[in-house]
Amino acid sequence: MKTRAAVAFEAKKPLEIVELDLEGPRAGEVLVEIKATGICHTDAYTLDGLDSEGLFPSVLGHEGAGVVVEVGPGVTSVKPGDHVIPLYTPECRQCKSCLSRKTNLCTAIRATQGRGLMPDGTSRFSYKGQTIFHYMGCSTFSNFTVLPEIAVAKIRSDAPFETACYVGCGVTTGVGAVVNTAQVEPGANCIVFGLGGIGLNVIQGLKMVGAGMIVGVDLNPDREEWGRRFGMTHFVNPKTVDGDLVAHLVQLTDGGADYTFDATGNTTVMRQALEACHRGWGESIIIGVAEAGKEIATRPFQLVTGRVWKGTAFGGARGRTDTPKVVDWYMDGKIEIDPMITHKMPLERINDAFDLMHRGESIRSVVVY
Amino acid sequence: MKTRAAVAFEAKKPLEIVELDLEGPRAGEVLVEIKATGICHTDAYTLDGLDSEGLFPSVLGHEGAGVVVEVGPGVTSVKPGDHVIPLYTPECRQCKSCLSRKTNLCTAIRATQGRGLMPDGTSRFSYKGQTIFHYMGCSTFSNFTVLPEIAVAKIRSDAPFETACYVGCGVTTGVGAVVNTAQVEPGANCIVFGLGGIGLNVIQGLKMVGAGMIVGVDLNPDREEWGRRFGMTHFVNPKTVDGDLVAHLVQLTDGGADYTFDATGNTTVMRQALEACHRGWGESIIIGVAEAGKEIATRPFQLVTGRVWKGTAFGGARGRTDTPKVVDWYMDGKIEIDPMITHKMPLERINDAFDLMHRGESIRSVVVY
Repeated sequence: MKTRAAVAFEAKKPLEIVELDLEGPRAGEVLVEIKATGICHTDAYTLDGLDSEGLFPSVLGHEGAGVVVEVGPGVTSVKPGDHVIPLYTPECRQCKSCLSRKTNLCTAIRATQGRGLMPDGTSRFSYKGQTIFHYMGCSTFSNFTVLPEIAVAKIRSDAPFETACYVGCGVTTGVGAVVNTAQVEPGANCIVFGLGGIGLNVIQGLKMVGAGMIVGVDLNPDREEWGRRFGMTHFVNPKTVDGDLVAHLVQLTDGGADYTFDATGNTTVMRQALEACHRGWGESIIIGVAEAGKEIATRPFQLVTGRVWKGTAFGGARGRTDTPKVVDWYMDGKIEIDPMITHKMPLERINDAFDLMHRGESIRSVVVY
Repeated sequence: MKTRAAVAFEAKKPLEIVELDLEGPRAGEVLVEIKATGICHTDAYTLDGLDSEGLFPSVLGHEGAGVVVEVGPGVTSVKPGDHVIPLYTPECRQCKSCLSRKTNLCTAIRATQGRGLMPDGTSRFSYKGQTIFHYMGCSTFSNFTVLPEIAVAKIRSDAPFETACYVGCGVTTGVGAVVNTAQVEPGANCIVFGLGGIGLNVIQGLKMVGAGMIVGVDLNPDREEWGRRFGMTHFVNPKTVDGDLVAHLVQLTDGGADYTFDATGNTTVMRQALEACHRGWGESIIIGVAEAGKEIATRPFQLVTGRVWKGTAFGGARGRTDTPKVVDWYMDGKIEIDPMITHKMPLERINDAFDLMHRGESIRSVVVY
């Protein structure tokens, strides 16, 4: 079949809207009509050539929502008509990771996914006979895409696609970091570094679980209003702090935070986030993806005196099990998504979404097919 | 009263055995006759002048066992004749830390303890009218010492002093790192870096809780026999590994360890310990105390993909609550101490213990009064 898609033919060039050839689903695969997709920093990271493992030409996009059109042989968990969210973190429920009960990082198809291919080692996309690679196992910048069955989460059918798609990455990453990774308890004092889309979702996750102080830290004063909109109780702009930021935050939180979250990707900030934790028990969660080659550092004394350094990927959420719950929380009004979708556009204008993001003018842009 | 003590008059000089004046216990304090004390690397660290906060002249020693001789006004939890272990990590059960249920790092007397003084801001020790400082709130290199009530753990009276003293630091630090900090579950694969006294106690803690693989790593081939003596199942000498040590350990443990422990104090090893953890859930616990100014580092990707970096002090044990349990485990035969006490000596020969330690010829030397 044919599908309209925005193709990244090479790094550092705009995406091109073309008609691709798409093979139907093979055994264990699902053909999905993507109805909406968010544009995430990770897509830009790859498109900008910063990911040394980025593959071109490829169909980017990993934050989508759509409808199952056709299933391949052996598929039992979804059927045509089901509403689904593609999962860049699949959930096979069979591998050592899935069975560990300790992580969401299913390894069933990691090797082929990293090479831009389906689990059988081939691509479903081609353009004039040339192979086009899949991206993060999703490729949601295509109106139709093929996914492994273990990489689709069935969601309720009354959730709007143009907001539910954000659950496929940003919402779950931020809210999940609170709920699954940190497991924040009511009353806990927390600090969130970076009030972009991820940071705002951390904040609303903290509000949902009844956190105490919810301190937001950002260099951009405009983000204060955004933070407060989702539950932030205190705003700190490092530019206006006299002296050491960490000391200021430790004082503000009466000895340090119970939990801190880095949503900046800046390794210097990651260290501040750890050191702003309370002695004895404070935990710091790294969410942001750092520049290639950058390292985090601290004195081991920080850990020996009880601080814990962790990270999270896809908010620690098991793709098929937990993603539908996040959609439920949204539909039940426990979390909000609508006000975060600052821009909607047709696929033809997808390059504008990257521009808006690079200029810091969007929280989330969504392409609606 | 008078007490015989080994005094550190200045850094980098041998201890001197002298008669000190010792004031009796004030309100909330306890006079203890020390019956035995271990000599720990931390004592040497201070005596060698490596601790920038080290105070002189002082009575070092923090790993003792003895008998309560006299209690000051208001003391209710111990009485003369009780067998006790002095605690450099006290347990007031009233402070924010004690009430958090998340840490053992009681802060009730931290400020004065750090200044070598009792909680009322004065010292009980003097020599020819000159103040001699307390050390880590314990000063067990004195036949008699005064301790805050919250800094003594009452233990059973049938435990021998010359082995029970080791519970006051090394045993609890190693076993506690397993039991309290990592909370290792049966069957877990674990790696212990450094097979000195702490590392061996980590190993026997792992054996006690039913760990699976217990891999010991040490540059000294003589330590293999010691490790196996206490439950180590695999020995790795980095000198004999072809290629990368971390890759070797990850392969040996089928993807990485569930828990790793650094008992070396070397920040390069601390990084290896983290990176030898299993993707998705492996936790690395820093026990060793690093050189002043040294930092740990890694790529944040290590944490984002599920590894956790932690530390532990006094094995995460609450002083008065958990230390007596470790003595019970020893008396019940769940852990061993006797074979680790490689040297016993009178106070007059305490400087020999430091020499043995510096030459790596002892696991633990104990002074018996």
